[in-house]
Amino acid sequence: MANFDIEISEVGPRDGLQSITAIMSTKDKLAWLDALVAAGVPEIEVGSFVPKSILPQLADTHELVEHLCDVPSLSIAVLVPNLRGAQNALKTRPTKISIPLSASETHSLLNVKRDHAQMLKEIALIAKLIRSEPVCHRPKFEGGLATAFGCALEGNISEDKVVSLAAALMEAGCDEVGLSDTTGYANPTQVQRLIKKVWDAIGKENLTGIHLHNTRGQGLANAFAAIETGITTIDSSMGGLGGCPAAPGASGNIVTEDLVFMLEAMGLRTGINFDKLFEAREILAKALPNEYLYGFTPKAGLPKGFKAFF
Amino acid sequence: MANFDIEISEVGPRDGLQSITAIMSTKDKLAWLDALVAAGVPEIEVGSFVPKSILPQLADTHELVEHLCDVPSLSIAVLVPNLRGAQNALKTRPTKISIPLSASETHSLLNVKRDHAQMLKEIALIAKLIRSEPVCHRPKFEGGLATAFGCALEGNISEDKVVSLAAALMEAGCDEVGLSDTTGYANPTQVQRLIKKVWDAIGKENLTGIHLHNTRGQGLANAFAAIETGITTIDSSMGGLGGCPAAPGASGNIVTEDLVFMLEAMGLRTGINFDKLFEAREILAKALPNEYLYGFTPKAGLPKGFKAFF
Repeated sequence: MANFDIEISEVGPRDGLQSITAIMSTKDKLAWLDALVAAGVPEIEVGSFVPKSILPQLADTHELVEHLCDVPSLSIAVLVPNLRGAQNALKTRPTKISIPLSASETHSLLNVKRDHAQMLKEIALIAKLIRSEPVCHRPKFEGGLATAFGCALEGNISEDKVVSLAAALMEAGCDEVGLSDTTGYANPTQVQRLIKKVWDAIGKENLTGIHLHNTRGQGLANAFAAIETGITTIDSSMGGLGGCPAAPGASGNIVTEDLVFMLEAMGLRTGINFDKLFEAREILAKALPNEYLYGFTPKAGLPKGFKAFF
Repeated sequence: MANFDIEISEVGPRDGLQSITAIMSTKDKLAWLDALVAAGVPEIEVGSFVPKSILPQLADTHELVEHLCDVPSLSIAVLVPNLRGAQNALKTRPTKISIPLSASETHSLLNVKRDHAQMLKEIALIAKLIRSEPVCHRPKFEGGLATAFGCALEGNISEDKVVSLAAALMEAGCDEVGLSDTTGYANPTQVQRLIKKVWDAIGKENLTGIHLHNTRGQGLANAFAAIETGITTIDSSMGGLGGCPAAPGASGNIVTEDLVFMLEAMGLRTGINFDKLFEAREILAKALPNEYLYGFTPKAGLPKGFKAFF
């Protein structure tokens, strides 16, 4: 049985490191990943299978997956942008392969040069490829609906469109769907409403996770709203590492340290040990001395007498 | 009829300015207050009636109240620490007088050198004084339960104690009670639970407001939890100005700008115009060039195509 009520998916090694210009050495990454594992983080998105020419920061993803493959109970997630990426991902043994599909077609064309129909076709090919793997090490395949709560290019995104794309992802062969607030546009009411609408279309078991950004400071309020609704996996990033290129000066993902504090304070187990989590933050801070690390809880410290689960 | 669903009480001029060493000139304060009024902020806590020797930053509170007295529909709140403060406050015409009662007796003794019994006796005297005022300009009298969610000195504070102190405040003659997370210890579940417990004891109509700090990044999540439960007045501070001396490096109150964005995005009217709110922030920033102003929304800007109510 899992030792957590809510699964934290640490996306810093992928979403965080791809957003900064500094390239973290493989050695530093391995030390950071080991520290995250030691802290009890149940899922880590370690990188993307994207050409080195596009994201040199993530060129060692294969090596990182290999390094973590034997860690018991750890879910190793990787992102792929296309079939080629999935083929490369399958040369190693990730637990989960995610592909983003932007609900905003304008964003999709800009980001991956493909419209919805082309992306769904590619996703169906990837699903077929993944299903051809032996069951014993077949990764879970997630379709992540980017810009699901609004887009910096298109503005408002119709909820009906998000719902129909979620259904299309399942039809294309995804095992599950995730919702991403790529640009930090979401508010708590919208989070609750959209989750329920997607559940009505594809079933509660097929949408369990959400990916939130803190661009407008709404991240933890949205996370709480999602958890209240029944979401059980939350993406977050150590130190809020990430940042959104579309919103200069704004922070990126919700901060793992503050999210873990919120959950543990609410009486929800994360399986994560605070002391060790803060040690992992120190490793990250030393490896990236020029990056600003967000997070209120690491600066203020835990409340006097605070008891976490681990 | 009020033009808001949720009442924002801007506490920056009191809670914010008392926490910094710089003394804002009366002229700058008046310009800032006028800008807040122009933005539509429905309630402003303009200062405290505390000896100038203790809080020189707030020595002009009387003048500020006088300046705002004729603004239609504006609620002018002031804080008093004792009977002498209340006597001074009544020399002008505030709409609301608040007195803090710390649920942590240790904190109370340190902060105002009085235990609970002494404070409740003082509060009863103030209530009597306020009730002797002519009804036409009698201020509302609020007892604010400080450290209601935990104390940096005592740690955990029993919820039963908070509930019984809320009842004692009403018995002493307060018109209403507020809950304050003075040290940023609260979590959303606790916020919801404690509000309901206090309501059970003193009635829903006697607890309508909450005062939250963002020391551990939980501020807006707690605000959302409070609003979901049925709280209708939220204290916040422009730029998160405040800071908590007990938690170095941590920000203070929840940020007005981000709170207004959350509420308006959720479809709840605040009566506040964003452009004018950001203008007020500019005035504050210029008046306090050495203070760091928090807030994600002012930096990231509003979402593309975002429509607020005003």
